[in-house]
Amino acid sequence: MKKNKTPNPEPRTPNAVASGNIVWHDHRLSKEERSKMKYQKPCILWFTGLSGSGKSTIANAVEARLYEMGRHTYLLDGDNIRRRLNKDLGFSDEDRVENIRRIGEVARLFVDSGLIILTAFISPFQKDRDQVRSMMEEGEFIEIFVDVPLEVCESRDPKGLYKKARKGEIADFTGISSPYEPPADPEIRLAAHSQSVEESVDQIVDYLKKEGYLDVR
Amino acid sequence: MKKNKTPNPEPRTPNAVASGNIVWHDHRLSKEERSKMKYQKPCILWFTGLSGSGKSTIANAVEARLYEMGRHTYLLDGDNIRRRLNKDLGFSDEDRVENIRRIGEVARLFVDSGLIILTAFISPFQKDRDQVRSMMEEGEFIEIFVDVPLEVCESRDPKGLYKKARKGEIADFTGISSPYEPPADPEIRLAAHSQSVEESVDQIVDYLKKEGYLDVR
Repeated sequence: MKKNKTPNPEPRTPNAVASGNIVWHDHRLSKEERSKMKYQKPCILWFTGLSGSGKSTIANAVEARLYEMGRHTYLLDGDNIRRRLNKDLGFSDEDRVENIRRIGEVARLFVDSGLIILTAFISPFQKDRDQVRSMMEEGEFIEIFVDVPLEVCESRDPKGLYKKARKGEIADFTGISSPYEPPADPEIRLAAHSQSVEESVDQIVDYLKKEGYLDVR
Repeated sequence: MKKNKTPNPEPRTPNAVASGNIVWHDHRLSKEERSKMKYQKPCILWFTGLSGSGKSTIANAVEARLYEMGRHTYLLDGDNIRRRLNKDLGFSDEDRVENIRRIGEVARLFVDSGLIILTAFISPFQKDRDQVRSMMEEGEFIEIFVDVPLEVCESRDPKGLYKKARKGEIADFTGISSPYEPPADPEIRLAAHSQSVEESVDQIVDYLKKEGYLDVR
């Protein structure tokens, strides 16, 4: 944080404004300063998987665990994105790409603010996920594949969406009438159908600890 | 935070997923829980004013001061919004409205995450600012009018934009060829041309203290 108190100076850079007898150099708080304050290395925990695989459930449980540990997180999912920021977007290929682009940009802002940001979207295409990864710095994008077989997701069908998709009432439904591309090389793979939510949370938190995301001083 | 540990229960709500022998009820961390952790009441500090009025400079200085006080903030401005999330938008009336809408939605997410979020955009139209205010809860939108006369802004002209606008090289330039509607009833008015940046920062931080934004326990 740099302040110069020379009397009535002229602005020296386009970003400095002289006002009274103080020039405030338009120093921006850095990601590092924010991270230190929160004792964590900010990152995106990007959950990807089929509808009904448990992305949101696990993401919420990870948030709760990190909250108990005093960490600062936030979760982006359909609830707070599709009905608000992206309410102008539909489900065409073009709109799906724009949907993920905006989510990526918002997640990036949260990382810049020092938070650990979780996103829970099907995000079926490797290219779109890679696009978000490429926007981030090394180690800031953690791809979490919630790997549950289609049969299991379909038998759960918590919102009755698979049923509708099978009847042809929903077009381009991932896994049924639109492809899902499993991550080629995710940082974390959760066999979420054969372990408890708590075990998935342990797996993620262990990764974060081991890789040094939770103990920045 | 509620967990049930009954063995192998069936999912009881669409949001609960049975997995192993634990049901995690999809409780979402609340704004209140996040705020408490940060000892602050989250809000938007919405800076509005002409180009060259010092919005970004003052906003950066407020962030720096709040950082020194251990508060959690983030700043949205042209640097991190126009070139990224909103890079698909131009300066037509329609695009300006969409620009402010998206900024409002993103700011709202940051408030939900527990942060004090600062925005520094000209945002010339009362209707657009009121639109963002209406998205927020009572007391979460703090309109800060950086009230600097056009002549002063134009004489500063840090980026040479007024000069270009006068020559007709920039269309729809606020204050020259496009109107600026001063806030009718802003929470804070800064006479930023007749006081130092530090004095403007004091004025804002005093307001936040007085109104109880900085001491949530």
